[in-house]
Amino acid sequence: MSIGVTTPKEFRASGVACGLKKTGALDLALVASDHDCACAGVFTTNQVKAAPVVYDQQTLAKNSGAMRAVVINSGCANACTGEPGLADTRATADATARALGCRADQVLVLSTGVIGQRLPMEKILAGVNNAAQNLSPTGGADASRAIMTTDTRPKVYQLPFANYSIGGMCKGAGMIHPNMATMLAVITTDAKIAPARLDRALRVAVNASFNRISVDGDMSTNDTLLVLANGASGYEIRDSELGDFTNALTQVATNLAQQLVRDGEGATKFVEIAITGARDESDAARVAKSIANSPLTKTALYGGDANWGRVVCAAGYSGVAVDPAKMKLWFGDVNVFANGTPTNFDEADSTRAIAGADIFIRLDLGQGDARATVWTCDLSHDYVTINGKYRT
Amino acid sequence: MSIGVTTPKEFRASGVACGLKKTGALDLALVASDHDCACAGVFTTNQVKAAPVVYDQQTLAKNSGAMRAVVINSGCANACTGEPGLADTRATADATARALGCRADQVLVLSTGVIGQRLPMEKILAGVNNAAQNLSPTGGADASRAIMTTDTRPKVYQLPFANYSIGGMCKGAGMIHPNMATMLAVITTDAKIAPARLDRALRVAVNASFNRISVDGDMSTNDTLLVLANGASGYEIRDSELGDFTNALTQVATNLAQQLVRDGEGATKFVEIAITGARDESDAARVAKSIANSPLTKTALYGGDANWGRVVCAAGYSGVAVDPAKMKLWFGDVNVFANGTPTNFDEADSTRAIAGADIFIRLDLGQGDARATVWTCDLSHDYVTINGKYRT
Repeated sequence: MSIGVTTPKEFRASGVACGLKKTGALDLALVASDHDCACAGVFTTNQVKAAPVVYDQQTLAKNSGAMRAVVINSGCANACTGEPGLADTRATADATARALGCRADQVLVLSTGVIGQRLPMEKILAGVNNAAQNLSPTGGADASRAIMTTDTRPKVYQLPFANYSIGGMCKGAGMIHPNMATMLAVITTDAKIAPARLDRALRVAVNASFNRISVDGDMSTNDTLLVLANGASGYEIRDSELGDFTNALTQVATNLAQQLVRDGEGATKFVEIAITGARDESDAARVAKSIANSPLTKTALYGGDANWGRVVCAAGYSGVAVDPAKMKLWFGDVNVFANGTPTNFDEADSTRAIAGADIFIRLDLGQGDARATVWTCDLSHDYVTINGKYRT
Repeated sequence: MSIGVTTPKEFRASGVACGLKKTGALDLALVASDHDCACAGVFTTNQVKAAPVVYDQQTLAKNSGAMRAVVINSGCANACTGEPGLADTRATADATARALGCRADQVLVLSTGVIGQRLPMEKILAGVNNAAQNLSPTGGADASRAIMTTDTRPKVYQLPFANYSIGGMCKGAGMIHPNMATMLAVITTDAKIAPARLDRALRVAVNASFNRISVDGDMSTNDTLLVLANGASGYEIRDSELGDFTNALTQVATNLAQQLVRDGEGATKFVEIAITGARDESDAARVAKSIANSPLTKTALYGGDANWGRVVCAAGYSGVAVDPAKMKLWFGDVNVFANGTPTNFDEADSTRAIAGADIFIRLDLGQGDARATVWTCDLSHDYVTINGKYRT
């Protein structure tokens, strides 16, 4: 059985080692369809954009209805490389197109790794040819390994329905501000869908998944999520099917996003932060992210310290108008704070509530009916070790 | 010779142990003047404000011209303690006033430590009496020790001029987002100055010092800076002297703020980030803070990795419109990035530039003439250790 991006029909993929990673591990992935694909993408909002981001945005704007392939290298981000870097991306797309027998504007390019180094093009071009020769309908697993950087495991997910399938893979890792490490995701489907509808579905799905592990506007130079639909199932998504398709796409995206969090650099705990009782969803998400990005909260959870004061404090500086006298806070099912003061909870209970690998924190703001959930991880010694020595 | 808050004439201070710290260390400080003082303060913008912050803001609004004393406890923040916490603060001020023979509205109260626990009032009241009995014109040193929490050393500074003196002390520590640990500072002067002028001078001084190690609006529940002027030198600060006085106050505040950074939790390196060539000072400060608060940059500096890509990336998501093609970046005097690409620098030189305990990073945005400097520290294993086990 095929997993990840090769779950949908008539997608093939491969992962090869072309020498970008000193370890000799897989470092170049190719995902290709035998048919033209509708394609939609979401890209970093960082003003310092890597060459492949600039290239893909331009290419996608011109050709969102007939994409054929995505080529991805790990080990080098091709960011802060100026015009020469952009030429390298173009050469990578050209070589992939030649190897696949399609046009260059039918190929998108993704890169992840160290910033500021040029791609070793000789290795890349050899790798592209090797990857094209190795394309396989069961290649989703290799592809998901070839895109890893500090990830400790590959991340794939798939939903095989009767009528059509959706499959995907992603890589991430840095998790203190989640999207400061490059997040790359490729999702494929054999549903038949017009590019504009696919774009609409993708934006809804991303907002409820990848954007809920991240701070808006606070992104790496390379962050990209692409979805390709090759129509091979023959099942068409019209407006009447768009709701169900969007839900399915959201489910795949949420699962992949949560896998990113669980594999956050040095993460020992997975933390779900649910804000309820907010005036609107945007307020709820803002408070949740303020807590999720508080290093003091994250280190306390790592240390097994149910330090609820840091959670309340982070809500207080979130920028949302909150009133501590109306707040209620739970660690697991232990209500630790209400009416502006700690409740008479037993410290042993609150400590037990955060002792496991999965932690649930709920903060009710007492202001309305809106809610939002954000996922994050703890901040550990290993996070510092990993990021202190990333390039060596 | 007296140091810190007792450098100016006719200020007395003390630091005693009243049992708030389990170690038996000094945990209650008193700073008092024999004369009524002009007083100005700057307080946290966090919407969750500790009881003493609420109390001091109200008291100062009514009585900024005749303050007599500041009483400070460490070990308990008296935050998230509701109305009972506010009553505890009031009782602390009352007891201090009785011990000193002044009115309660002539006493301000500061607290720092764990959030959400009530003050042990019996210990506090005994401590207040003990501190009042121990007031001394050389007590600035003890007072500066009694306000410490995770600080590894006391922080004092003084400028003794011919006409008047300024002295101060502060405590801080958490440094990943600098002001998420409580920052408390008390500055005294024997200059004679009207409360409104003192307030104006303080705001200028804070903006160039404590606000340059912090993110606006991103503050703890307790952050407070107070300045008291008792006029004992007889030297009056009128509008003609206000510029010089403001400069002197800024110098004291900057020195104290930099001591906070140098003693940041787990800090092994002091990092000055200078942004030049910005459109205006606000842009420059925003970019500088984005870099200063980037955990990836801070861990790289800790690890001795001159990972300039992370600096450029943090500038890119700062929210300021920047153009990487116009940027120039230096580690020490090594220009590592220009024209959108890395320069041909020697990696050994850039590594050497960040090998010491003091690191200087300069980023020119190539957009104008404005500049701003921000100070921060690195993010180390010890930061995680300290904050994972803070309450235990």
